[in-house]
Amino acid sequence: MQRIFDIDPWHIRTSQFDPAQRRLQESMTSLGNGYMGMRGFFEEQYSGDSLPGIYIGGIWYPDKTRVGWWKNGYPEYFGKVINAVNFIKVEILVNGEPLDLAKDTITDFQLDLDMRQGLLTRRFTLIRNDVKLAFQFERFLSIATKELAAQRIQVTNLSQAAVHLEINSVLDADVSNEDANYGTHFWTVQELQAQATQGYLQTETIPNDFGTPQFVLGVLMSNDCQGLAPQTGTDNGVSVSNRFVGELASQGQATLVKKTIVTTSRDYTREQLKTRAAELLKTVASQSFAALLAASAEQWAQRWAKSDVQISGDDAAQQGIRFNLFQLFATYYGEDARLNIGPKGFTGEKYGGATYWDTEGFALPVYLGIADPSVARHLLQYRYDQLSGAFHNAKQQGLKGALYPMVTFNGIENHNEWEITFEEIHRNGTIAYAIYNYTKYTGDETYLKAKGIDVLVAISRFWADRVHYSKRRGKYVIHGVTGPNEYENNVNNNWYTNFLAQWTLKYTLAQLPKVSAEKQTELAVSETEQAHWRDIVDRMYLGVDTETGVFIQNDDFFDKDLQPVSTIPREQRPINQHWSWDKILRSPYIKQADVLQGIWYFIDDFDTETKRKNFDFYEPLTVHESSLSPSVHAILAADLHDEAKAVEMYARTARLDLDNYNNDTDDGLHITSMTGSWLAIVQGFAGMRVRQGQLHFAPFLPQQWTGYEFRILFRGRLIQVSVTKTGSQLTLLQGEPITVDLAGKPMKLIAKEAD
Amino acid sequence: MQRIFDIDPWHIRTSQFDPAQRRLQESMTSLGNGYMGMRGFFEEQYSGDSLPGIYIGGIWYPDKTRVGWWKNGYPEYFGKVINAVNFIKVEILVNGEPLDLAKDTITDFQLDLDMRQGLLTRRFTLIRNDVKLAFQFERFLSIATKELAAQRIQVTNLSQAAVHLEINSVLDADVSNEDANYGTHFWTVQELQAQATQGYLQTETIPNDFGTPQFVLGVLMSNDCQGLAPQTGTDNGVSVSNRFVGELASQGQATLVKKTIVTTSRDYTREQLKTRAAELLKTVASQSFAALLAASAEQWAQRWAKSDVQISGDDAAQQGIRFNLFQLFATYYGEDARLNIGPKGFTGEKYGGATYWDTEGFALPVYLGIADPSVARHLLQYRYDQLSGAFHNAKQQGLKGALYPMVTFNGIENHNEWEITFEEIHRNGTIAYAIYNYTKYTGDETYLKAKGIDVLVAISRFWADRVHYSKRRGKYVIHGVTGPNEYENNVNNNWYTNFLAQWTLKYTLAQLPKVSAEKQTELAVSETEQAHWRDIVDRMYLGVDTETGVFIQNDDFFDKDLQPVSTIPREQRPINQHWSWDKILRSPYIKQADVLQGIWYFIDDFDTETKRKNFDFYEPLTVHESSLSPSVHAILAADLHDEAKAVEMYARTARLDLDNYNNDTDDGLHITSMTGSWLAIVQGFAGMRVRQGQLHFAPFLPQQWTGYEFRILFRGRLIQVSVTKTGSQLTLLQGEPITVDLAGKPMKLIAKEAD
Repeated sequence: MQRIFDIDPWHIRTSQFDPAQRRLQESMTSLGNGYMGMRGFFEEQYSGDSLPGIYIGGIWYPDKTRVGWWKNGYPEYFGKVINAVNFIKVEILVNGEPLDLAKDTITDFQLDLDMRQGLLTRRFTLIRNDVKLAFQFERFLSIATKELAAQRIQVTNLSQAAVHLEINSVLDADVSNEDANYGTHFWTVQELQAQATQGYLQTETIPNDFGTPQFVLGVLMSNDCQGLAPQTGTDNGVSVSNRFVGELASQGQATLVKKTIVTTSRDYTREQLKTRAAELLKTVASQSFAALLAASAEQWAQRWAKSDVQISGDDAAQQGIRFNLFQLFATYYGEDARLNIGPKGFTGEKYGGATYWDTEGFALPVYLGIADPSVARHLLQYRYDQLSGAFHNAKQQGLKGALYPMVTFNGIENHNEWEITFEEIHRNGTIAYAIYNYTKYTGDETYLKAKGIDVLVAISRFWADRVHYSKRRGKYVIHGVTGPNEYENNVNNNWYTNFLAQWTLKYTLAQLPKVSAEKQTELAVSETEQAHWRDIVDRMYLGVDTETGVFIQNDDFFDKDLQPVSTIPREQRPINQHWSWDKILRSPYIKQADVLQGIWYFIDDFDTETKRKNFDFYEPLTVHESSLSPSVHAILAADLHDEAKAVEMYARTARLDLDNYNNDTDDGLHITSMTGSWLAIVQGFAGMRVRQGQLHFAPFLPQQWTGYEFRILFRGRLIQVSVTKTGSQLTLLQGEPITVDLAGKPMKLIAKEAD
Repeated sequence: MQRIFDIDPWHIRTSQFDPAQRRLQESMTSLGNGYMGMRGFFEEQYSGDSLPGIYIGGIWYPDKTRVGWWKNGYPEYFGKVINAVNFIKVEILVNGEPLDLAKDTITDFQLDLDMRQGLLTRRFTLIRNDVKLAFQFERFLSIATKELAAQRIQVTNLSQAAVHLEINSVLDADVSNEDANYGTHFWTVQELQAQATQGYLQTETIPNDFGTPQFVLGVLMSNDCQGLAPQTGTDNGVSVSNRFVGELASQGQATLVKKTIVTTSRDYTREQLKTRAAELLKTVASQSFAALLAASAEQWAQRWAKSDVQISGDDAAQQGIRFNLFQLFATYYGEDARLNIGPKGFTGEKYGGATYWDTEGFALPVYLGIADPSVARHLLQYRYDQLSGAFHNAKQQGLKGALYPMVTFNGIENHNEWEITFEEIHRNGTIAYAIYNYTKYTGDETYLKAKGIDVLVAISRFWADRVHYSKRRGKYVIHGVTGPNEYENNVNNNWYTNFLAQWTLKYTLAQLPKVSAEKQTELAVSETEQAHWRDIVDRMYLGVDTETGVFIQNDDFFDKDLQPVSTIPREQRPINQHWSWDKILRSPYIKQADVLQGIWYFIDDFDTETKRKNFDFYEPLTVHESSLSPSVHAILAADLHDEAKAVEMYARTARLDLDNYNNDTDDGLHITSMTGSWLAIVQGFAGMRVRQGQLHFAPFLPQQWTGYEFRILFRGRLIQVSVTKTGSQLTLLQGEPITVDLAGKPMKLIAKEAD
């Protein structure tokens, strides 16, 4: 654990500047507006260690797959999010010497991410002999105008004498990724234009061998600098600059406001990029920095009104849940069905910015609870639109139907570890489950009938081809898979995978009669095919240990040396940083919920005894070295009334990045895992369930807290749930009256008239 | 199958020049003398497709391991054999235009590898308008002086008019590997020296980050050209040249003899390289090309006298076995215990020229039979010398004892596919088995007692730590391995691995009492440790299918869909080129002998019924997509008197490269697999076994053959085995009288007096 920011309910704030923690600070002060995002790297030149990164949603490059031993079926390329034009760059020279926090002496450092408004502020005072300058940098990415990034930089001369100050506002295309084959530069400059206070840069991604799109970015900046004189704009072939120079008198102040518009070929033709950027700039040109910020902050306020979780008596927990929701929303708020939620969002290069099953497994239930159903529906639509890629992936493996990818930008598999790419096929089950989950929560069957059924049938066809019949067992089995527990590879009969496969077939069979005759004809699931699916459902092998009654995670699991995690010496944790892969594979230690993930998905379908047995068996073997894991255990612990365990698990998810639990947040934030704290509170502590279309709660209050409160969107209603030491209260804030079950009692909720 | 050379008992010969087959031709016309080797690429410039390669034994470079997802325990580098200075290079200009067979018109092409002498000859006639020149290129690597490469090039003017001819004899350090990260050039030039008819080039491998040695090569050439005038020697910083120029009158002839000496820092200090090369050159300077060839051919003759296999009635089979022995000896004849047998020898870059378990599994039994025991002993010594590397490898996995590497130059693991590196640990069993095999064959226990026991104890300690006890089974199990069948990965209880582990412990326990008290103290295998080993021996799990009595290849194997190989559509073979990896893993198809490998190792220890059951079960499931596989099946088929199957399997191994069976010989030859044809004839057709120190034969004659004959070295005797349609005959050619069992009857053999 490593806590480098102060505890504060609405701010991520520190007055410590530690160059050794720069990358960690950068991750934690990331900003995003769904359309684009950036790490909290400095605007000005900085010669210390840093991972600069600005990423534009949906802009990626297919890099050639390189492996030691090529295996048939590997994807030809892996996609990576690429570092875009650095448009926040501002070079600052004080008396001719560049400002560089790695070398300069500073005092009064303050770094502050205001989560309520989505504003990042940095302040410090530069001391160079007699020179003393106060700096303030502010920036935000607008929610109101998604193409807009706004910056304000104020320099105040605290010295006795005047100071010569030069500010260069730059659009810089000379950027690369830290993780790139052969240090490739992914951009070529197409056009540069520099006027005194405006600059335009158009770049295109380099060609690729795989037929995926080359993307074009249009980046237009306008700079307004009070207190310094503009110079002639310049370009050097790879960047454009607006330069402002002058003498800053003692106590004098210079203020630069930089507005940048980013347009992309995802939305406009190449020819339109510049004019569209100019038009957009026009709409914000006359507005002050403060006005633009207010417009964006208003949008944040609306998000918070639907989603805020308040925790009393534990500011660290309060800060944790808000930080998680803030960064989740910064990554995705459902405006664009072509985008999705990368595990690191816009906060780092790792995981390539691509889509994983984390979205359906963990993020979808959160968005269902705190955002308009259209957000979740866009997530479903994303997969529907990529169905052809999923057909391609299955075909690559010689199988029928659709296999959704482990990692993707466009539906085509992008990951190349065989034990994951080829074998971690349980992801397909979660894609199907998401359709069920959406339908169950919203009660809306239109998506299911119009599009979801196509996805369900395609996935069912994959499962039906992927199982095989074992004569010896007299059962259908699934060999050669990797479950959610990636600490076992190429296992047979992973309970979770077999269960999801069986469930998908069963669910699809049940939905088929609901769809239109036309759709049925289109899908052409014959009687014979349905009979075969039914046979698989009836005779699927699901391992149960005869002695304990526990579901067997996979064949031979009970032959392992089943010592609990508590027996691992502390200095050998996390095991993935200390043990050889082979030792990890042979061990009984579980990276993340596996059998328990399946039980969580269908938590109401298992009796308490079954849930308890499995939880008691698997929890002591789980190392939670995936950030996705503790929340599932928290919910199950709560379900089993093991409140202490639920709180312990919650603590591991709520401040994962803020406290750098896994010692890897310098690479970027664990965006998809940020869902975990919300899930642990809402499904865990408050026990929220949907049963036969009705909301249920069964809240408890963690001992350390004095209370908590959250809001839930459910079928057109906004419901507030408050839990205090004296009890729980449900309030309907908006919408038609509704009956909700509270701790086993139905309560009819009626909204008050608006005050 | 693709046969591009004529059938001939002693020659690899063709009169076809097909640029599309150049790489394949190059592989097949490789030369080697154990010290160095080369592919059959052209001396002169050639603009067509080609894989030039000259490799010096023991000269390699550690290239940084690059993988998609780094796993703890991976080796930091992988070694690769590096393409050395091109010292056979001779540029030829005819009337100022370079000779280039990719562009020029030629007739009367002949390419001929003479296996009896180890000489490669190429002839053709160049036609350019009125110009007509006959060329003959000859080259060999001397067995008599291992540092010597000799070339002779003759040009005869068949035109009416004189022709201007220029011959540049070059040492060229501007070489690279086709397979290199980032196209790295591995050599830097340290010294260049060019005189008129001599040239010296000294190169050093570039520095590396892993602390492995940088190698220095000294390459000295002398050129003698009759018919052309020598010019001033030149160098261009990366190569040195001796140029010979003149007018060749009609019917005139020019002859260049080039002698090259290669010294390396493996044998001499950097400072000695040049003088040692000069001294060596002196010893051959006055000898003609013919005399040098005769000296080397005499050595070849001695090798053939001990090892030749003659087959009557099947010239293709005859050529196959000779080619295999020729290329095997070209790679290794045991002179240098620091070297070993790479799967591609000196014939290509693939497999990095490193050592695999192929050596102990397949090559050692051949060398035992046809070469002095010192050769096999050098192979054992090689592993003894690398024991510290094996300790390192085990430690990398958090295990005790020694784990011999899958791939190595220096004992340190060099391979980075986790399912192989970490899991294909059965290799360790074969290293132990080799000691047993040597001792059993030679009756010599000195190696075992002095050094072998160290290796056995170290390997036993590894096994004892690698097994774990399964409470459920009440047995020791081994999880997470890959057997010889690499078409299954990360399986549990691979029968072969478990069996070898159990055997190693049992064998080591039995040998311990034999060694000196001093050695026992040094080894310090306590009573407790021995008791633990005994417990593992007693309670090792070895799966047997209750229904069929077949040994279970690994857990769940019998749950697979067990359709025979014959059901795979022809166009999907080989499956490794047509099926996705995941489909291969789930299939029941076996890449190479696995259970049957174990039965072969201990062929006398299983009853016929057991052997038959297992053979009948596994052979129909085996795709033999490893070139090491068919020979094992041939021996077992012969053992079970299934002569037709034995012959079928022999056919797949005997001409594997000559007929390019696996469609990959263009990369290089399958050197270690070349042992297979000898094993199939000697252990298979002739049924050779050693039982209680006595040789046994039980020969049969394949129907297509009229007879076969081979020689065997056994405990100081040279025995000739002749099998004809009328029966089998054993003749003692050298050595003390000996009793040998022939088809169940003991025969006393007495050598005739030398004629």
